[in-house]
Amino acid sequence: MQPPKGTRDLLPSDMRKLNYVLSIVESVFKRYGYEPIDTPVFEDWDVLSAKNAGGEELKKETYYFKDKSDRELGLRYDLTVPAARIVASDPSIAKPFKRYSIGKAWRYEQPQAGRYREFWQADVDCYGSELARADAEVIAIASDCLRELGLKEFRIRLNDRRVIERKVNKLGITNPLEVFRCLDKLEKIGEETVCKELKEKGVETGKIEKLMALVRSKPEEIDELEGLVKELKNFGIEKEVAIDFGMIRGFDYYTGPVFEITAGGLAIGGGGRYDRLIEAYGGKPTPAVGISLGISRIVDEMDKKKLFDIEDYPAKVFVCSVNVDMVKEAVKIVQRLRKSGISADFDLMGRNLSKQFDYINAKKIPFAVVVGPAEIKAKKFVLRDMKTGKEKKLGLETMIKELG
Amino acid sequence: MQPPKGTRDLLPSDMRKLNYVLSIVESVFKRYGYEPIDTPVFEDWDVLSAKNAGGEELKKETYYFKDKSDRELGLRYDLTVPAARIVASDPSIAKPFKRYSIGKAWRYEQPQAGRYREFWQADVDCYGSELARADAEVIAIASDCLRELGLKEFRIRLNDRRVIERKVNKLGITNPLEVFRCLDKLEKIGEETVCKELKEKGVETGKIEKLMALVRSKPEEIDELEGLVKELKNFGIEKEVAIDFGMIRGFDYYTGPVFEITAGGLAIGGGGRYDRLIEAYGGKPTPAVGISLGISRIVDEMDKKKLFDIEDYPAKVFVCSVNVDMVKEAVKIVQRLRKSGISADFDLMGRNLSKQFDYINAKKIPFAVVVGPAEIKAKKFVLRDMKTGKEKKLGLETMIKELG
Repeated sequence: MQPPKGTRDLLPSDMRKLNYVLSIVESVFKRYGYEPIDTPVFEDWDVLSAKNAGGEELKKETYYFKDKSDRELGLRYDLTVPAARIVASDPSIAKPFKRYSIGKAWRYEQPQAGRYREFWQADVDCYGSELARADAEVIAIASDCLRELGLKEFRIRLNDRRVIERKVNKLGITNPLEVFRCLDKLEKIGEETVCKELKEKGVETGKIEKLMALVRSKPEEIDELEGLVKELKNFGIEKEVAIDFGMIRGFDYYTGPVFEITAGGLAIGGGGRYDRLIEAYGGKPTPAVGISLGISRIVDEMDKKKLFDIEDYPAKVFVCSVNVDMVKEAVKIVQRLRKSGISADFDLMGRNLSKQFDYINAKKIPFAVVVGPAEIKAKKFVLRDMKTGKEKKLGLETMIKELG
Repeated sequence: MQPPKGTRDLLPSDMRKLNYVLSIVESVFKRYGYEPIDTPVFEDWDVLSAKNAGGEELKKETYYFKDKSDRELGLRYDLTVPAARIVASDPSIAKPFKRYSIGKAWRYEQPQAGRYREFWQADVDCYGSELARADAEVIAIASDCLRELGLKEFRIRLNDRRVIERKVNKLGITNPLEVFRCLDKLEKIGEETVCKELKEKGVETGKIEKLMALVRSKPEEIDELEGLVKELKNFGIEKEVAIDFGMIRGFDYYTGPVFEITAGGLAIGGGGRYDRLIEAYGGKPTPAVGISLGISRIVDEMDKKKLFDIEDYPAKVFVCSVNVDMVKEAVKIVQRLRKSGISADFDLMGRNLSKQFDYINAKKIPFAVVVGPAEIKAKKFVLRDMKTGKEKKLGLETMIKELG
């Protein structure tokens, strides 16, 4: 019995990697003054399918269902839309509202390397500020996260929906959002397929050629991005960011700068400004900008680069009992260690000493203590370093200090 | 626009409470040598609805849906079933396998105080040990978690499915699982309704009276629980646990001891032994025991008892700029503080100094620094403690030490 297609179970070694990444990312978010929120995994279908939300492509990929009262629901496809719903529904929230969300999202895509139907995301968004300073801050956060994780080879690309819209309008294209959704898939499906899709959307061949020239063109000075580039300088990260007309982002809700971070050939993060989404949910017009880190892909990429150097065992010390009568004593010692904050384990299987050591080795537990009648009597225990084989005879309190 | 009925958004203050509880619980789990796993939020319907899994009542409460390929799926109603599926599918996992899961589960119940359709759970389960020592350990973990959270007034009740089954069989009752599911609802819906439901299930009036006498009876010495009571003594928690025939637990998968923890009139945790579930998923017969903490209810109960004493602000320090020209300098300082691990914020709104202080007060940020031309020139900054009003003139490095 396997997990549903496109989803994964994370066993302890994988889960420790995920937890490590999440802990670093969360600590960076907090340092920047962002506050945690959590929303349900499913939303009313009206919210997910609203105009100016994710858009048609995403709607097609959304897990849709009805509850027992025929309420139409869907699993969230991102963490941006639920947060925007909250901001729209509660005007009492002080601005700027800088929030982070860490959780899963779901998209019914064709599973392939790096693409899962269930994946972890970590988002920061800033509501209430229209200043480019806020855009620069969320980019700085993403950059700090990746650097702190040790991922050095990533690139951040920047574009602006207003610039592209202006250029697309000049070409006389009347369905810019559809065109954006097509162009967004350039890296994923290649130029040929994108051109075919554009044709299907009714864009004429001459215009398609011009669009391709546009996305390949070397960006000139752009008025719309001047302010943001200045703020990126203030944050000291202007050199990390490159303007690229070929990077569009697929979501309908973007209204200004958009950014995307790639590593190992995949987008591991992306975001942008979406100043009209809160209105779309019935809220007061509220400027908004955010960035999302694709945590599942970041874990994969770090794994590929062997960047994980974390403890991967269930307990620091295993307290062995030489025979069944000694288990009672082992429990006392193990409980004493645990109460001192040391992760400790003992035999739950009724195994003999040799089998207990087999388990210690299988689980790579770094220290072992052996409890027998002589040790109990002397109140001294042998602490064995399983790696070096070195042993020390210690009283319980000294052992706690040694292991702590 | 609200979250779907029966679910909740957690805003920062609530989320910090949840995160605090989860961090304590997770640290206890780790100390006991349990390892993290994660599973998808949805499972194949076959898994959730398998014989010996949650049972009929739970199936009725499960969010069911089909994906775009007509695959039948359901949102998990607990964290036990997905973990059992993993253990069943991967016989290479070394035993004992002591795992924890922290995540959400979903049940379509009538929402009321303490009952949500989406809720957080934290589970420990031990696979591979048939010894009562493992049962005692998971009870000890739950007790440690609640004590460490400061929840003193909770009670742990213990029963054994084998004992109740034996007694129920003696009464000549032929549908014990159905009867258990009814009896489990005693505290929730009251004796009268339970008796009505038992009647509907075909249990005769005389037998119902005897069942009621049984669940109210003072437990005698019980052979089946003798071993567990001894192990509870070894763990030093025998006084915390009381045998109660009226506590049944509703899940079909239990096969031996069952336990439940209540506080403030609600079950905040529960578990037991389920030695046949792994087999039901096609795995090798594997003894299993676990306990689940109802995190959402624990947070509610702690809130009611005012047990939270945690930091509830977005940043420790806010770096104010006296005018727009100073923002550039404020960014540098704020980035320096953040790089030193201090949570710090600055103005993203283009506000004047007085408005910046309004925000500091609204968000209860404990320290403020004011940056103006004189401060930049002197390289000394005034650090204001917002609570006491005390101010200190400090260089940047000293300030970092002071705040760190």
